[in-house]
Amino acid sequence: MLNQVADLDRVFQALADPGRRLMLERLSEGPASVSELGRPLAMSLAAVVQHVQVLEGSGLVRSQKLGRTRTCSLNPAALRSAEHWISERRTLIERRLDRLGEYLAETAGSPDTGPADPAPPDSSTS
Amino acid sequence: MLNQVADLDRVFQALADPGRRLMLERLSEGPASVSELGRPLAMSLAAVVQHVQVLEGSGLVRSQKLGRTRTCSLNPAALRSAEHWISERRTLIERRLDRLGEYLAETAGSPDTGPADPAPPDSSTS
Repeated sequence: MLNQVADLDRVFQALADPGRRLMLERLSEGPASVSELGRPLAMSLAAVVQHVQVLEGSGLVRSQKLGRTRTCSLNPAALRSAEHWISERRTLIERRLDRLGEYLAETAGSPDTGPADPAPPDSSTS
Repeated sequence: MLNQVADLDRVFQALADPGRRLMLERLSEGPASVSELGRPLAMSLAAVVQHVQVLEGSGLVRSQKLGRTRTCSLNPAALRSAEHWISERRTLIERRLDRLGEYLAETAGSPDTGPADPAPPDSSTS
Protein backbone atom coordinates (compact mmCIF):
# COMPACT_ATOMS: atom_id res chain seq x y z
CA MET A 1 0.00 0.00 0.00
CA LEU A 2 1.23 3.46 -0.92
CA ASN A 3 -0.22 5.23 2.09
CA GLN A 4 2.36 3.78 4.44
CA VAL A 5 4.32 6.29 6.49
CA ALA A 6 7.65 5.90 4.63
CA ASP A 7 5.96 6.23 1.25
CA LEU A 8 4.17 9.46 2.21
CA ASP A 9 7.49 10.81 3.52
CA ARG A 10 9.05 10.18 0.11
CA VAL A 11 6.07 11.42 -1.89
CA PHE A 12 5.87 14.74 -0.01
CA GLN A 13 9.68 15.07 -0.10
CA ALA A 14 9.61 14.57 -3.87
CA LEU A 15 6.85 17.19 -4.21
CA ALA A 16 8.81 19.76 -2.16
CA ASP A 17 11.09 20.73 -5.05
CA PRO A 18 9.90 23.18 -7.76
CA GLY A 19 11.99 21.47 -10.48
CA ARG A 20 10.50 18.08 -9.66
CA ARG A 21 6.99 19.57 -9.63
CA LEU A 22 7.69 21.01 -13.10
CA MET A 23 8.66 17.50 -14.25
CA LEU A 24 5.42 16.11 -12.81
CA GLU A 25 3.44 18.86 -14.57
CA ARG A 26 5.04 17.80 -17.85
CA LEU A 27 4.32 14.12 -17.15
CA SER A 28 0.67 14.85 -16.35
CA GLU A 29 0.36 15.57 -20.10
CA GLY A 30 1.89 12.21 -21.05
CA PRO A 31 5.13 10.19 -20.95
CA ALA A 32 8.46 11.92 -21.63
CA SER A 33 12.12 11.02 -21.89
CA VAL A 34 14.59 12.13 -19.19
CA SER A 35 16.11 14.73 -21.53
CA GLU A 36 12.65 16.10 -22.41
CA LEU A 37 11.95 16.45 -18.67
CA GLY A 38 15.17 18.39 -18.19
CA ARG A 39 14.71 20.73 -21.17
CA PRO A 40 12.85 23.57 -19.36
CA LEU A 41 15.16 23.36 -16.33
CA ALA A 42 18.50 25.17 -16.15
CA MET A 43 20.48 22.20 -14.82
CA SER A 44 22.89 19.50 -15.94
CA LEU A 45 21.62 16.13 -17.22
CA ALA A 46 23.22 14.54 -14.12
CA ALA A 47 21.07 16.77 -11.89
CA VAL A 48 17.96 15.94 -13.94
CA VAL A 49 18.70 12.20 -13.58
CA GLN A 50 19.02 12.64 -9.80
CA HIS A 51 15.64 14.38 -9.63
CA VAL A 52 14.07 11.61 -11.74
CA GLN A 53 15.55 9.05 -9.32
CA VAL A 54 13.94 10.86 -6.36
CA LEU A 55 10.61 10.85 -8.23
CA GLU A 56 10.97 7.12 -8.99
CA GLY A 57 11.94 6.36 -5.38
CA SER A 58 8.73 8.04 -4.20
CA GLY A 59 6.57 6.00 -6.59
CA LEU A 60 5.29 9.16 -8.32
CA VAL A 61 7.10 8.27 -11.54
CA ARG A 62 7.82 5.01 -13.32
CA SER A 63 10.38 4.66 -16.07
CA GLN A 64 11.12 2.13 -18.78
CA LYS A 65 14.16 1.86 -21.02
CA LEU A 66 13.32 1.39 -24.71
CA GLY A 67 16.48 1.16 -26.77
CA ARG A 68 18.67 4.06 -25.66
CA THR A 69 15.84 6.20 -24.31
CA ARG A 70 14.43 6.03 -20.78
CA THR A 71 10.77 7.03 -20.89
CA CYS A 72 9.08 8.28 -17.71
CA SER A 73 5.40 8.27 -16.86
CA LEU A 74 3.33 9.58 -13.95
CA ASN A 75 1.78 7.11 -11.49
CA PRO A 76 -1.63 8.45 -10.43
CA ALA A 77 -1.84 6.06 -7.43
CA ALA A 78 1.03 7.84 -5.64
CA LEU A 79 -0.62 11.23 -6.27
CA ARG A 80 -3.90 9.84 -4.90
CA SER A 81 -2.29 8.63 -1.65
CA ALA A 82 -0.86 12.10 -0.93
CA GLU A 83 -4.07 13.85 -1.96
CA HIS A 84 -6.09 11.50 0.25
CA TRP A 85 -3.99 12.22 3.35
CA ILE A 86 -4.35 15.99 2.89
CA SER A 87 -8.04 15.81 1.99
CA GLU A 88 -8.90 13.83 5.14
CA ARG A 89 -7.26 16.42 7.44
CA ARG A 90 -8.73 19.33 5.48
CA THR A 91 -12.26 17.88 5.66
CA LEU A 92 -11.96 17.30 9.42
CA ILE A 93 -10.77 20.83 10.21
CA GLU A 94 -13.27 22.48 7.85
CA ARG A 95 -16.14 20.55 9.42
CA ARG A 96 -14.92 21.58 12.86
CA LEU A 97 -14.68 25.24 11.82
CA ASP A 98 -18.18 25.06 10.28
CA ARG A 99 -19.63 23.67 13.52
CA LEU A 100 -17.80 26.38 15.50
CA GLY A 101 -19.22 29.03 13.15
CA GLU A 102 -22.76 27.65 13.58
CA TYR A 103 -22.34 27.57 17.36
CA LEU A 104 -21.12 31.17 17.45
CA ALA A 105 -23.98 32.27 15.18
CA GLU A 106 -26.50 30.51 17.44
CA THR A 107 -25.13 31.95 20.67
CA ALA A 108 -24.96 35.44 19.10
CA GLY A 109 -28.57 35.19 17.83
CA SER A 110 -29.55 35.27 14.14
CA PRO A 111 -26.50 35.74 11.86
CA ASP A 112 -28.46 38.49 9.99
CA THR A 113 -28.69 40.67 13.09
CA GLY A 114 -25.18 41.04 14.31
CA PRO A 115 -23.39 43.75 16.24
CA ALA A 116 -24.43 46.20 13.47
CA ASP A 117 -28.07 45.84 14.54
CA PRO A 118 -27.95 45.58 18.31
CA ALA A 119 -31.69 46.09 19.01
CA PRO A 120 -32.57 43.74 21.88
CA PRO A 121 -35.50 41.35 21.27
CA ASP A 122 -37.55 42.76 24.16
CA SER A 123 -37.18 46.49 23.45
CA SER A 124 -40.91 47.23 24.02
CA THR A 125 -40.92 49.83 26.80
CA SER A 126 -44.59 50.75 26.55
CA MET B 1 -1.66 33.68 -2.50
CA LEU B 2 -0.60 30.39 -0.93
CA ASN B 3 -0.09 28.54 -4.21
CA GLN B 4 3.10 30.39 -5.00
CA VAL B 5 6.11 28.21 -5.70
CA ALA B 6 7.97 28.95 -2.45
CA ASP B 7 4.89 28.30 -0.36
CA LEU B 8 4.24 24.91 -1.97
CA ASP B 9 7.91 24.03 -1.40
CA ARG B 10 7.49 24.74 2.30
CA VAL B 11 4.09 23.08 2.61
CA PHE B 12 5.26 19.81 0.99
CA GLN B 13 8.53 19.96 2.97
CA ALA B 14 6.52 20.33 6.19
CA LEU B 15 4.31 17.38 5.20
CA ALA B 16 7.33 15.14 4.48
CA ASP B 17 7.99 14.37 8.17
CA PRO B 18 5.91 11.70 9.99
CA GLY B 19 6.13 13.56 13.33
CA ARG B 20 4.83 16.77 11.77
CA ARG B 21 2.03 14.84 10.04
CA LEU B 22 1.07 13.39 13.45
CA MET B 23 0.90 16.96 14.81
CA LEU B 24 -1.34 17.99 11.90
CA GLU B 25 -3.57 14.96 12.52
CA ARG B 26 -3.97 16.08 16.14
CA LEU B 27 -4.68 19.68 15.05
CA SER B 28 -7.33 18.53 12.55
CA GLU B 29 -9.38 17.63 15.67
CA GLY B 30 -8.96 21.14 17.14
CA PRO B 31 -6.38 23.55 18.59
CA ALA B 32 -3.66 22.22 20.92
CA SER B 33 -0.75 23.57 22.94
CA VAL B 34 2.84 22.87 21.87
CA SER B 35 3.31 20.40 24.74
CA GLU B 36 0.08 18.59 23.81
CA LEU B 37 1.38 18.26 20.24
CA GLY B 38 4.63 16.77 21.50
CA ARG B 39 3.05 14.29 23.92
CA PRO B 40 2.71 11.29 21.52
CA LEU B 41 6.17 11.90 20.06
CA ALA B 42 9.35 10.52 21.63
CA MET B 43 11.34 13.77 21.36
CA SER B 44 12.51 16.70 23.44
CA LEU B 45 10.38 19.84 23.82
CA ALA B 46 13.08 21.72 21.85
CA ALA B 47 12.63 19.32 18.93
CA VAL B 48 8.84 19.68 19.14
CA VAL B 49 9.20 23.50 19.07
CA GLN B 50 11.41 23.22 15.96
CA HIS B 51 8.80 21.09 14.18
CA VAL B 52 6.06 23.57 15.13
CA GLN B 53 8.21 26.37 13.68
CA VAL B 54 8.53 24.46 10.38
CA LEU B 55 4.75 24.00 10.34
CA GLU B 56 4.21 27.71 11.06
CA GLY B 57 6.74 28.70 8.39
CA SER B 58 4.79 26.68 5.83
CA GLY B 59 1.50 28.35 6.75
CA LEU B 60 -0.07 25.00 7.70
CA VAL B 61 -0.22 26.01 11.37
CA ARG B 62 -0.92 29.26 13.15
CA SER B 63 -0.14 29.86 16.80
CA GLN B 64 -1.17 32.36 19.43
CA LYS B 65 0.28 32.92 22.88
CA LEU B 66 -2.34 33.17 25.61
CA GLY B 67 -0.66 33.71 28.98
CA ARG B 68 2.11 31.15 29.23
CA THR B 69 0.63 28.73 26.71
CA ARG B 70 1.16 28.83 22.96
CA THR B 71 -1.91 27.39 21.24
CA CYS B 72 -1.62 26.05 17.70
CA SER B 73 -4.36 25.63 15.12
CA LEU B 74 -4.52 24.16 11.63
CA ASN B 75 -4.92 26.50 8.63
CA PRO B 76 -7.13 24.77 6.05
CA ALA B 77 -6.12 27.22 3.27
CA ALA B 78 -2.55 25.86 3.21
CA LEU B 79 -3.85 22.28 3.05
CA ARG B 80 -6.16 23.29 0.20
CA SER B 81 -3.32 24.80 -1.86
CA ALA B 82 -1.29 21.56 -1.65
CA GLU B 83 -4.35 19.39 -2.30
CA HIS B 84 -5.27 21.54 -5.31
CA TRP B 85 -1.84 21.20 -6.92
CA ILE B 86 -1.91 17.39 -6.57
CA SER B 87 -5.53 17.09 -7.65
CA GLU B 88 -4.96 19.05 -10.87
CA ARG B 89 -2.09 16.76 -11.96
CA ARG B 90 -3.95 13.62 -10.89
CA THR B 91 -7.07 14.63 -12.86
CA LEU B 92 -5.02 15.37 -15.99
CA ILE B 93 -3.17 12.06 -15.97
CA GLU B 94 -6.27 10.01 -15.10
CA ARG B 95 -8.19 11.63 -17.99
CA ARG B 96 -5.29 10.88 -20.33
CA LEU B 97 -5.14 7.25 -19.20
CA ASP B 98 -8.93 6.92 -19.62
CA ARG B 99 -8.71 8.25 -23.19
CA LEU B 100 -5.82 5.86 -23.90
CA GLY B 101 -7.88 2.96 -22.52
CA GLU B 102 -10.85 3.92 -24.71
CA TYR B 103 -8.60 4.21 -27.76
CA LEU B 104 -7.07 0.79 -27.14
CA ALA B 105 -10.51 -0.74 -26.59
CA GLU B 106 -11.74 0.80 -29.86
CA THR B 107 -8.75 -0.30 -31.94
CA ALA B 108 -8.97 -3.82 -30.46
CA GLY B 109 -12.68 -4.04 -31.36
CA SER B 110 -15.44 -4.39 -28.76
CA PRO B 111 -13.98 -4.60 -25.21
CA ASP B 112 -16.06 -7.79 -24.68
CA THR B 113 -14.32 -9.60 -27.51
CA GLY B 114 -10.64 -9.25 -26.88
CA PRO B 115 -7.63 -11.39 -27.79
CA ALA B 116 -9.46 -14.34 -26.20
CA ASP B 117 -11.90 -14.31 -29.13
CA PRO B 118 -9.72 -13.68 -32.17
CA ALA B 119 -12.27 -14.74 -34.85
CA PRO B 120 -11.69 -12.46 -37.88
CA PRO B 121 -14.77 -10.55 -39.15
CA ASP B 122 -14.60 -12.11 -42.67
CA SER B 123 -14.09 -15.77 -41.76
CA SER B 124 -16.77 -17.05 -44.17
CA THR B 125 -14.92 -19.60 -46.37
CA SER B 126 -17.99 -21.16 -48.07
